Amino acid sequence: MLHKNFKNIDKVTYGRGSFSQLTETIEPIRKENKNYFVFIVDNYFNGKPLSTKLQNKAEDLVYFIDVDPYEPTTELIDTLRDEILAQKGLPSGVIGIGGGSIMDIAKALSLMLTNEGSSTLYQGLNLIKKPSVYHIGVPTISGTGAEVSMTAVLTGPEKKLGLKCDWTVFNQVILDPELIASVPTDWWFYTGMDTYIHCIESHSGIRNNAFSLAYGDQALSLCREIYLNDGAGQTPENNDKLMVASLMGGLSLTYSEVGVCHALSYGLSKIHGTRHCFANCVIFQHLADIYPKGHAEFSQMIKKHNIDLPQGLSKQWDEDTFDKMATVSYNLPFMWNHAFGDNYKEIATMDYIKDLFRRL
Amino acid sequence: MLHKNFKNIDKVTYGRGSFSQLTETIEPIRKENKNYFVFIVDNYFNGKPLSTKLQNKAEDLVYFIDVDPYEPTTELIDTLRDEILAQKGLPSGVIGIGGGSIMDIAKALSLMLTNEGSSTLYQGLNLIKKPSVYHIGVPTISGTGAEVSMTAVLTGPEKKLGLKCDWTVFNQVILDPELIASVPTDWWFYTGMDTYIHCIESHSGIRNNAFSLAYGDQALSLCREIYLNDGAGQTPENNDKLMVASLMGGLSLTYSEVGVCHALSYGLSKIHGTRHCFANCVIFQHLADIYPKGHAEFSQMIKKHNIDLPQGLSKQWDEDTFDKMATVSYNLPFMWNHAFGDNYKEIATMDYIKDLFRRL
Repeated sequence: MLHKNFKNIDKVTYGRGSFSQLTETIEPIRKENKNYFVFIVDNYFNGKPLSTKLQNKAEDLVYFIDVDPYEPTTELIDTLRDEILAQKGLPSGVIGIGGGSIMDIAKALSLMLTNEGSSTLYQGLNLIKKPSVYHIGVPTISGTGAEVSMTAVLTGPEKKLGLKCDWTVFNQVILDPELIASVPTDWWFYTGMDTYIHCIESHSGIRNNAFSLAYGDQALSLCREIYLNDGAGQTPENNDKLMVASLMGGLSLTYSEVGVCHALSYGLSKIHGTRHCFANCVIFQHLADIYPKGHAEFSQMIKKHNIDLPQGLSKQWDEDTFDKMATVSYNLPFMWNHAFGDNYKEIATMDYIKDLFRRL
Repeated sequence: MLHKNFKNIDKVTYGRGSFSQLTETIEPIRKENKNYFVFIVDNYFNGKPLSTKLQNKAEDLVYFIDVDPYEPTTELIDTLRDEILAQKGLPSGVIGIGGGSIMDIAKALSLMLTNEGSSTLYQGLNLIKKPSVYHIGVPTISGTGAEVSMTAVLTGPEKKLGLKCDWTVFNQVILDPELIASVPTDWWFYTGMDTYIHCIESHSGIRNNAFSLAYGDQALSLCREIYLNDGAGQTPENNDKLMVASLMGGLSLTYSEVGVCHALSYGLSKIHGTRHCFANCVIFQHLADIYPKGHAEFSQMIKKHNIDLPQGLSKQWDEDTFDKMATVSYNLPFMWNHAFGDNYKEIATMDYIKDLFRRL
């Protein structure tokens, strides 16, 4: 198809305290399959107040998963899936409560519960054969747009690539700004900048259009209120806005495409395990020539919030490492095409990409 | 529930020429029910170029419906439904190609094909018992937000009220800005102002929130580019933006509420058959005290495009007519509550509402 046809989140609740409506929201779904839900919760909340407000029933399975050491892997999903099916059979649904990684795990797990074999078989576009079970996303950190995207990004033995199809998209998302109040300031910054970079990249390329521009412009405007203007900072009012900005930034890139920063970021994360939002920031600080306006504003925001990004990383990398990173990035042609136009292959060569990595 | 939980359009395609993808889009659905589609097309296109590009198959039913004389009625829907079912049985789906009224007909028909009895039985919230058949909206005029809303507004013998439930929402919307190029300038203005007024009313009231404000702010910003700033006018670039503004304005009011203008507009339309978008403009010109900023900008746009709105309408109305109009408006308490807060009953009395109608 010439024009993309995108699946929306089925239903969205927005508002302070809306997480408390989870019980009623999932009640009708509990009659499906084996009548229980799987909760996938960021381990950050283990023992914290939120863990007592999950609204899980005795029959539900609750997993606290630590996504700090590395991003979600195909192995994690396969193991979880096998364990859950062996223990209790097919659940009514999966509830993800956490950040982008937890959203990805909930989406991928809901698909792999009904599709046989390893998740590595399904990394790519429309490779999934059967509809997922019902799945809900409850973001507790905002910015990645994972709550709205049709991809569940997984790192496999060979590639970092999403399970991407209509069934990946959440059946329900609950956006409760109270849940992002406790995000540590550095991650509040990195994840918000993921949204910011989504919009800059969505705008700066051949695939932008009035739809992606409208969503991106509004998300950028919200980012400026949250991170740059008077009143910027981690306030309740700004948290209200950040949840909307994340959603809109995600929709902007969905109807357009990301660009150079994301292509490089995938290479950095795949080889070094660097977390996605942080990787984007580490890279974007060096892209003044490619995204001049966005870079200038990003630099102001970095300064305003005293964010200290690592420098000189590339000094520790040998040529083989550069090769590996560049290979991952090179193999994302749709991003380079969007950023540089139809003659992108002449620009985004392996050497060019390796030189970009040398800036880090 | 404290916080609204809204159903999105399942899938959205956006872009110039995207209507030509209708064939592929509905192909998988043709295996449902009696393997044919019902096309509901604005009679405006009968004999015009678009009527040769509908992509209908021999087995499909195509209805050209004239929505100019009055807004969609419960009787129209019931008659259509009975005729279609008698002739060919349950269709695979319904495709609405036109403006807000055609969107409402397509949505209502898709629901009434599977729900027995008159559509008057289902005017209200969540009264529909069974899921609709698949239905697609293809707007050819933008502004009402009917393409995104969960209501199919019908005028019945007793009330003007929507069939409102999750199943009302379109399964697919195709937003092709080429289709709105031929809209007559006066209707281009009235329908766009519907979006504008949605946002002003959504913002000005107790139910606004960061979500409705973000959508409304962006829709207002687009409206200014389309109707007010340098470059305003019926251009391809502005048509691209208007389709997005209509969608975003619809989402703004969905997560908040409309207000005084819409409450009055329903009264005017119910009693006099005035078309919705036009009725809003006729009323909004007299609401300077209630929406001062929005009114000032609206007046500039009226002036810029030499729009001539009728004056002195109320001179022809007797007291009984004022009573009837005010009764319709009075019975929309959620709109008055949003606009005036919790003591709205003290403000929006029958006398107050009649006095507002006397301004027309």
